[in-house]
Amino acid sequence: MLKKGCSEVIDECAQSITASDVYTRESVMGHDIAALTYLLGEKCGECGKYVHLGATSYDVVDTAWALIIKDALAIVKRRLRYIIEKLIDMAYQYKEAIMVGRTHGQHALPITLGFKFANYIYEFTRSLERLFETEKRVVRSKISGAVGTMAAWRGKGIVLEEIASKYLGLEPHKIATQVAPRDGFAELVSVLAILASQLDRFALEVRELARPEIGEIYETGKRVGSSTMPQKRNPVTAERISGLAKVARSLVIVALENIPLMHERDLTNSSSERILIPHMFLIIDQMLIDMLKLLDTIYIDIDAMKRNLDLLKGQIMSEAIMIKLVEKGMPRHEAHKILSEITRNLKAEESLKQALIKDERILKLLTIKEIEEALNYYTYLGNYKELIDRTIKYSKDVLNRIQ
Amino acid sequence: MLKKGCSEVIDECAQSITASDVYTRESVMGHDIAALTYLLGEKCGECGKYVHLGATSYDVVDTAWALIIKDALAIVKRRLRYIIEKLIDMAYQYKEAIMVGRTHGQHALPITLGFKFANYIYEFTRSLERLFETEKRVVRSKISGAVGTMAAWRGKGIVLEEIASKYLGLEPHKIATQVAPRDGFAELVSVLAILASQLDRFALEVRELARPEIGEIYETGKRVGSSTMPQKRNPVTAERISGLAKVARSLVIVALENIPLMHERDLTNSSSERILIPHMFLIIDQMLIDMLKLLDTIYIDIDAMKRNLDLLKGQIMSEAIMIKLVEKGMPRHEAHKILSEITRNLKAEESLKQALIKDERILKLLTIKEIEEALNYYTYLGNYKELIDRTIKYSKDVLNRIQ
Amino acid sequence: MLKKGCSEVIDECAQSITASDVYTRESVMGHDIAALTYLLGEKCGECGKYVHLGATSYDVVDTAWALIIKDALAIVKRRLRYIIEKLIDMAYQYKEAIMVGRTHGQHALPITLGFKFANYIYEFTRSLERLFETEKRVVRSKISGAVGTMAAWRGKGIVLEEIASKYLGLEPHKIATQVAPRDGFAELVSVLAILASQLDRFALEVRELARPEIGEIYETGKRVGSSTMPQKRNPVTAERISGLAKVARSLVIVALENIPLMHERDLTNSSSERILIPHMFLIIDQMLIDMLKLLDTIYIDIDAMKRNLDLLKGQIMSEAIMIKLVEKGMPRHEAHKILSEITRNLKAEESLKQALIKDERILKLLTIKEIEEALNYYTYLGNYKELIDRTIKYSKDVLNRIQ
Amino acid sequence: MLKKGCSEVIDECAQSITASDVYTRESVMGHDIAALTYLLGEKCGECGKYVHLGATSYDVVDTAWALIIKDALAIVKRRLRYIIEKLIDMAYQYKEAIMVGRTHGQHALPITLGFKFANYIYEFTRSLERLFETEKRVVRSKISGAVGTMAAWRGKGIVLEEIASKYLGLEPHKIATQVAPRDGFAELVSVLAILASQLDRFALEVRELARPEIGEIYETGKRVGSSTMPQKRNPVTAERISGLAKVARSLVIVALENIPLMHERDLTNSSSERILIPHMFLIIDQMLIDMLKLLDTIYIDIDAMKRNLDLLKGQIMSEAIMIKLVEKGMPRHEAHKILSEITRNLKAEESLKQALIKDERILKLLTIKEIEEALNYYTYLGNYKELIDRTIKYSKDVLNRIQ
Repeated sequence: MLKKGCSEVIDECAQSITASDVYTRESVMGHDIAALTYLLGEKCGECGKYVHLGATSYDVVDTAWALIIKDALAIVKRRLRYIIEKLIDMAYQYKEAIMVGRTHGQHALPITLGFKFANYIYEFTRSLERLFETEKRVVRSKISGAVGTMAAWRGKGIVLEEIASKYLGLEPHKIATQVAPRDGFAELVSVLAILASQLDRFALEVRELARPEIGEIYETGKRVGSSTMPQKRNPVTAERISGLAKVARSLVIVALENIPLMHERDLTNSSSERILIPHMFLIIDQMLIDMLKLLDTIYIDIDAMKRNLDLLKGQIMSEAIMIKLVEKGMPRHEAHKILSEITRNLKAEESLKQALIKDERILKLLTIKEIEEALNYYTYLGNYKELIDRTIKYSKDVLNRIQ
Repeated sequence: MLKKGCSEVIDECAQSITASDVYTRESVMGHDIAALTYLLGEKCGECGKYVHLGATSYDVVDTAWALIIKDALAIVKRRLRYIIEKLIDMAYQYKEAIMVGRTHGQHALPITLGFKFANYIYEFTRSLERLFETEKRVVRSKISGAVGTMAAWRGKGIVLEEIASKYLGLEPHKIATQVAPRDGFAELVSVLAILASQLDRFALEVRELARPEIGEIYETGKRVGSSTMPQKRNPVTAERISGLAKVARSLVIVALENIPLMHERDLTNSSSERILIPHMFLIIDQMLIDMLKLLDTIYIDIDAMKRNLDLLKGQIMSEAIMIKLVEKGMPRHEAHKILSEITRNLKAEESLKQALIKDERILKLLTIKEIEEALNYYTYLGNYKELIDRTIKYSKDVLNRIQ
Repeated sequence: MLKKGCSEVIDECAQSITASDVYTRESVMGHDIAALTYLLGEKCGECGKYVHLGATSYDVVDTAWALIIKDALAIVKRRLRYIIEKLIDMAYQYKEAIMVGRTHGQHALPITLGFKFANYIYEFTRSLERLFETEKRVVRSKISGAVGTMAAWRGKGIVLEEIASKYLGLEPHKIATQVAPRDGFAELVSVLAILASQLDRFALEVRELARPEIGEIYETGKRVGSSTMPQKRNPVTAERISGLAKVARSLVIVALENIPLMHERDLTNSSSERILIPHMFLIIDQMLIDMLKLLDTIYIDIDAMKRNLDLLKGQIMSEAIMIKLVEKGMPRHEAHKILSEITRNLKAEESLKQALIKDERILKLLTIKEIEEALNYYTYLGNYKELIDRTIKYSKDVLNRIQ
Repeated sequence: MLKKGCSEVIDECAQSITASDVYTRESVMGHDIAALTYLLGEKCGECGKYVHLGATSYDVVDTAWALIIKDALAIVKRRLRYIIEKLIDMAYQYKEAIMVGRTHGQHALPITLGFKFANYIYEFTRSLERLFETEKRVVRSKISGAVGTMAAWRGKGIVLEEIASKYLGLEPHKIATQVAPRDGFAELVSVLAILASQLDRFALEVRELARPEIGEIYETGKRVGSSTMPQKRNPVTAERISGLAKVARSLVIVALENIPLMHERDLTNSSSERILIPHMFLIIDQMLIDMLKLLDTIYIDIDAMKRNLDLLKGQIMSEAIMIKLVEKGMPRHEAHKILSEITRNLKAEESLKQALIKDERILKLLTIKEIEEALNYYTYLGNYKELIDRTIKYSKDVLNRIQ
């Protein structure tokens, strides 16, 4: 049906129409896509009649969203890949950097900073995997006309959809109403909000470890910390990540509420998505930029890490002693009870070792040398190396698989 | 390290401990898993000392969640599969059942009910696909002790994790802190909330089409409609689906907020997940049950569907006339303008045909026979058959792939 | 401490500093308020030293938010007041315009359009009341320096706060950390999201009543309905309201998450509020504008309303018959059962009256004239007049009370 | 219309009907309130016919919600009042307990613990105020029959509503559809979620100050900290508060989505509110109980507070020095720049004083004695006393006003 050469003619004549021409016309007609098609129809001569012929506005809008999202996801994935690669380098670099593992904000057991980073590598790689899986459901063309039956193309709809989709480098949705199904957008926004919350976790880590009482990691940079307190070194980049994560989380609700549109579509997704999609991508983009900046500029104080390990004078090794006692034959629950009692009754400034070596129940089973060995942080890091390696291997596999 | 036969001994002695024993002990100790391990330790003789040895509570809790979620997901997937299969049957059955396609609640173009159902098949199948992809990230064992280094197992952690995971039929997380990463839970809850919102979309369809003014689909059943208005036939099952969808959507926020736990974990996920996970599954289960009930009991009034098509006396075919005019050489935007004008100026009770056959601009290009042909709903259903078939093929492929 | 005349000097010299000067400096210093104070310090000669002396950035930011919110709320309240006043006019105008009352989308009992509007008057007036109550907690100055102790003002903090607050026309918070308490912002955003959801309810009403099968109310206007279906009269203004309401609802989560800031403040509220507060107000403003437009332009088809009342051939009056039977001595539950049975067994095209006058159980108690009287919609509108009047009285009281 | 004595008869005969009778009947009829009214109708003899006469189910349900919410709010307000009163005591007790004020997790300026508590007093009192203001909009009877016109009461609706409402101790809504307006529920849930987030802020304070590196406040109690790390003193009560706050926040979305019901009501609020309202109250109740427990059991380490103040060797007093320099004539921005430089260049173990007294720019303006005075924490607490007193006065006024 399409006259030979009209595609080129329209392409060319489209150059002569500016966005402001469309806005001017829209202000009269009250419909953006209709305004554009009228202008093209009027200006493109004989070929003009093929413009938007049989198409509905959301053939244009949703297919454009697919292309925009494809490009935006490419940026997100690229930045995320950098972050993961950077974290892999840092996990190797700090593989042996011993530090306090904290649960409930309390000292739990020693870990290494490389082990900590490896956990983030795992979590971020899972996000990369999710982005990849999501993409195939959301980056799809929607070219099927009003209500989705392709009726106006008089039987040639499938062919037309195939040609146009191929031209745009997209796979079409298997079927659609007047609009692409909104579950895809909700999945996309959820997956980005999950990534945002993972970045928030890392940012919270930095914000907490940057406390002067802890001082293990802090943001560097020349920025002024406070307009009135000259000494402040505020973790403002990490705080911005945490702040934006709140907005990212909330937007999932919008995306979910957009799924139950009425019948073959209603328009309530339109105004909300004009806010939702650009904001979601701008927010995640800023967060990823901030995360990269954070990784590039944080100062890691290995000495402070070691110092903090000693803070509780050996108590952090209670589990190690308990395990040792069980190895020597004491029932586990009894060992647990004894250690609970000893740690609770420690005197000020008394170390765990001092308390252990005057407790008969302990001495009955362990020599002082065995106690000292059990209190050595470096012998109680478990399989951290294998776990870090296993994680990096998984991550590299995903990085290789997902180009 | 484990004494031969202790596994059986503990298994047996565990039978003698009741939940209420654990609760009683917990009320003294203030820790659920610790209470259980003390009881097992005390009651299981010499073998008792191996109970929970080197494990942390969340090795138990998170691995149990994985098993629970696996079972729960099996139910969800089974029910969802039934729904899709039922919808496939219905799409075939109503493939040719012509009806009004509605956008903005307004009459847009004719579709068939089978085509409408096929859209739901597509959307639900995408959810099934998502559930399948999510499962591999969330149904995983977490067996790596406090802070996740496996330290207490003195180098044998990886082996122990492998044996225990194999026994439970789970793959382990590649790495973990004290707890499994919470992005998996957030993904699961998001995916279920998306499914809930899709069910909501179907429920809304039923609720709207059940309006007496439309009367195309309605819920049957013997229930009383109203305590005071005896005539009411309320779409209460569909309304319950829509009601529960609101709760499902909101819970995504909880799951997302649980991702940024502090360091190697804090406990704020615990209380919230005790509500989140059971409620999310109970809600989605009820919704799926209601959806199946709805599909089994809705009455479909094919005559009402046809009747409603005539309601606007042919206006629903405006696009078809416009396309015809363009085929005959009229520029598209001009045809659009003329049809807009004609439909806006229709007199009360006047049909589109009556208006068309007295408009010179139309008659210059179209014969009355051509107008009549263009106004025939049945010739303007586009590629609905291929689209339905393509969708069902995709859906069956997924159903076959995901067992 | 402040030199006489310095206030004027600074005022004047502040005019010479442009926003772009501040941005340039900020890009070096990394702190917006610090950049501004440096510039003022450098440019305002001897008086410059008093600029920001003892103040913290959020003395400026939060007090500015208070002033912005005060102005923004004035606009919101003014628009809402117009809407309520317009609805009061419309409630009077359509006081007697009888129509179908619908529950579950089903015909329930007759109401009047004025009664329907009165419900919205009630709901919107409650929102106005809430805005008024909220304002006193959120529109407050925060002038107490870093950490909120006013330390830098050497004992004169309370006086300084009083003078500055009076100058700005604000009451100060009773106490603050480095920032004003964020519960005020959360309350504000919640109250606006409630208003947004009420507007959504009205918009949904219009969108539903504009269905061609119902046709009681629809949007007028010259806009193009569809880029491809020339006949469409889409309720796009109402749909925009419903679309934006989704965003408004979601933003409450951001505001709530901003309450638990760490200690005397962390910065995570900053980035999120830069998005939250302007967007929330811009969204509600657009919604109120759209609502006013809707009220000004909707077409109300009184004939269609009457016609729809007859659609179910009298069934809508089942409750009236039931009540009549009880008045004549039949137990209520028996009357309910009989009417349920009769309405369920109505033959196609049979009216309720026809069914009633051939049912012996009915005829035993009611004469045909009594049946006819009971079936008269106009005698079964209850206390609609008093309820409308009572509501308008309440609303006017609030409008008078809240200037 | 009501026979004398029937009220007593029904009251008595209602005692003979059990909940399980109603459930059994509901399972046949599919409607809870209808089942109850049938049973009462059948069992209460001649008087039975008055049961539910003219009423709709939500006259019962929504009025019952009002009574339930009234009782529940009484508990919430009572607990909150205790918390505020306890905090007032603690603010007095710790009025002079000097400690680090922290912003961004960094040391900012000295405050006192009493001043910190006073901020919570302010915030919680604002919540109490909100609960009080909300109550008048949500605790209201809804007694106006199907669609809200009171039609079945044949003109006596207003009287009946008044008598019933007075009997129940409730004010009626000015008008209603078939249901009470849902903005009231949304307001209630928002206000409770705000309170929950404030409790979360306090809980976060405790969780952070309980870090071993800080050690200023921690939870006491005999509970086991960890099932495998015997030394742990986890802030589990505070963590439960923070965990439950997440659920409270999310539920606001449900309440907001329930506002836009269709026409005179749809049923989608029913299933969701059955979850929403009880859970919201149970969650806030547990949080308040936990908060009271926390206040009763936290250990406050005044020595640790003082010790931490010295941690940065005087840097926390930078603002004080800056102000002093300005008093002596240095421009503020210059003083800010110099202090930024000095604090950034401090050598390890060097105190601010040591750095100051070797800086010529400082010594030109300040004597060593002046420096020492400026570095004294106790002279730099500003108007903390007046602010605490002002806050407690406001709080007591509210406590007295709201009974």
